[in-house]
Amino acid sequence: MSNFGFAKLRVVNPFEFAFREARSAVGAAPLLTRTEEFKSVADAVADCSLVVGTSALSRRNPEHVVRDLQQGARLIRKRLATGNVALLFGSEKRGLSNEDLSHCHWLMRVPTREEHRSMNLGQAVAVCLYELARSREFEPAKERVTHAAASDLERLTALLLELLQTSGYSKTSAEKAGQKRSAAPAEEKIRRFVRRLNLADGDAELLLGMLRQIRWKIESGAKAD
Amino acid sequence: MSNFGFAKLRVVNPFEFAFREARSAVGAAPLLTRTEEFKSVADAVADCSLVVGTSALSRRNPEHVVRDLQQGARLIRKRLATGNVALLFGSEKRGLSNEDLSHCHWLMRVPTREEHRSMNLGQAVAVCLYELARSREFEPAKERVTHAAASDLERLTALLLELLQTSGYSKTSAEKAGQKRSAAPAEEKIRRFVRRLNLADGDAELLLGMLRQIRWKIESGAKAD
Repeated sequence: MSNFGFAKLRVVNPFEFAFREARSAVGAAPLLTRTEEFKSVADAVADCSLVVGTSALSRRNPEHVVRDLQQGARLIRKRLATGNVALLFGSEKRGLSNEDLSHCHWLMRVPTREEHRSMNLGQAVAVCLYELARSREFEPAKERVTHAAASDLERLTALLLELLQTSGYSKTSAEKAGQKRSAAPAEEKIRRFVRRLNLADGDAELLLGMLRQIRWKIESGAKAD
Repeated sequence: MSNFGFAKLRVVNPFEFAFREARSAVGAAPLLTRTEEFKSVADAVADCSLVVGTSALSRRNPEHVVRDLQQGARLIRKRLATGNVALLFGSEKRGLSNEDLSHCHWLMRVPTREEHRSMNLGQAVAVCLYELARSREFEPAKERVTHAAASDLERLTALLLELLQTSGYSKTSAEKAGQKRSAAPAEEKIRRFVRRLNLADGDAELLLGMLRQIRWKIESGAKAD
């Protein structure tokens, strides 16, 4: 990270002992001493308007758009003009969980050989940040849209989930609607769906307002029972 | 190396114990078991028509031409058409000695920050090989997403509008939510909003299903009045 000029490291539930050791080591990089710790992915990415997961998966991922590193880096550069972007890496052993992935707008993969996809964590980070730093030179026109922060998307997710549960929207309906053979819990499905909408700042607010009004209607209907 | 499809590792006087351990480990990469050992750099690069050293040095190296990774990778690929090319890395601790460097035609450096040039060996190798592999076969990824047909979007618009009207979602709420001073009627606003979502095919269906369920709930609540 320091080699390529990236300064903000956020960690979620790090292995306490190893992390404290690394942090307090003599000559620890300033980056490490300034690292922020979080209890959940949601908290760690709350102020980010784009969350990109890194994955060793093939391009054929049914739940997410998966972009190659070069194309992904270009999009990330654009988005950095208007907000924070989180690049989410999983642990060395287990990678990102489905719950982790449900916080991501899309996934990015390093173009490795099909026969050997899984990369060492440190090397994957280095390659991704090299590509981001490299494409910085060719910065394209700025996007005018400000995208919704993860905290707003999380609020939307919770509200929509509440509405659907109140309405008796079942797993079966979600499966019928093109989400077949996925065992992901409803919350993850809804969280992914909300990220795929790629909402602009104002639209997230607009949708929140609509859903709140609908909730009010449902609640007042229930009271009339 | 295996991630990016490079098969020939040659080592010069490796630290015997560690190297034998790594090589004979269960599940050692085939690449490692086929690694060739040499007594000198001269022997290791004997059949190569181009030897490129990797260096954390600045561009102002009096002894050698130093090329940036991207430019260097381009030249290396050209040369691979007519002969073997060696990419020479030093040890983690000491890097390349002057003797090692003297075997090189030119040097290549990863474009790191001036303030933090020295890279971890494994990361430097990964970044160099990524760049070599990248420019070899870059084809921009096709987007696999099929976007929703206008007819689906129109069905969505009508359903959402109906829900909002039933719920008493007023013009005022829409105006509060960042849509100030627009004279467009509610229907147009909702239609535009739905288009901005840029929904994939399956997601339009998913959202239609959700909204239908919510409408059912509201209607059944109203009947109970």
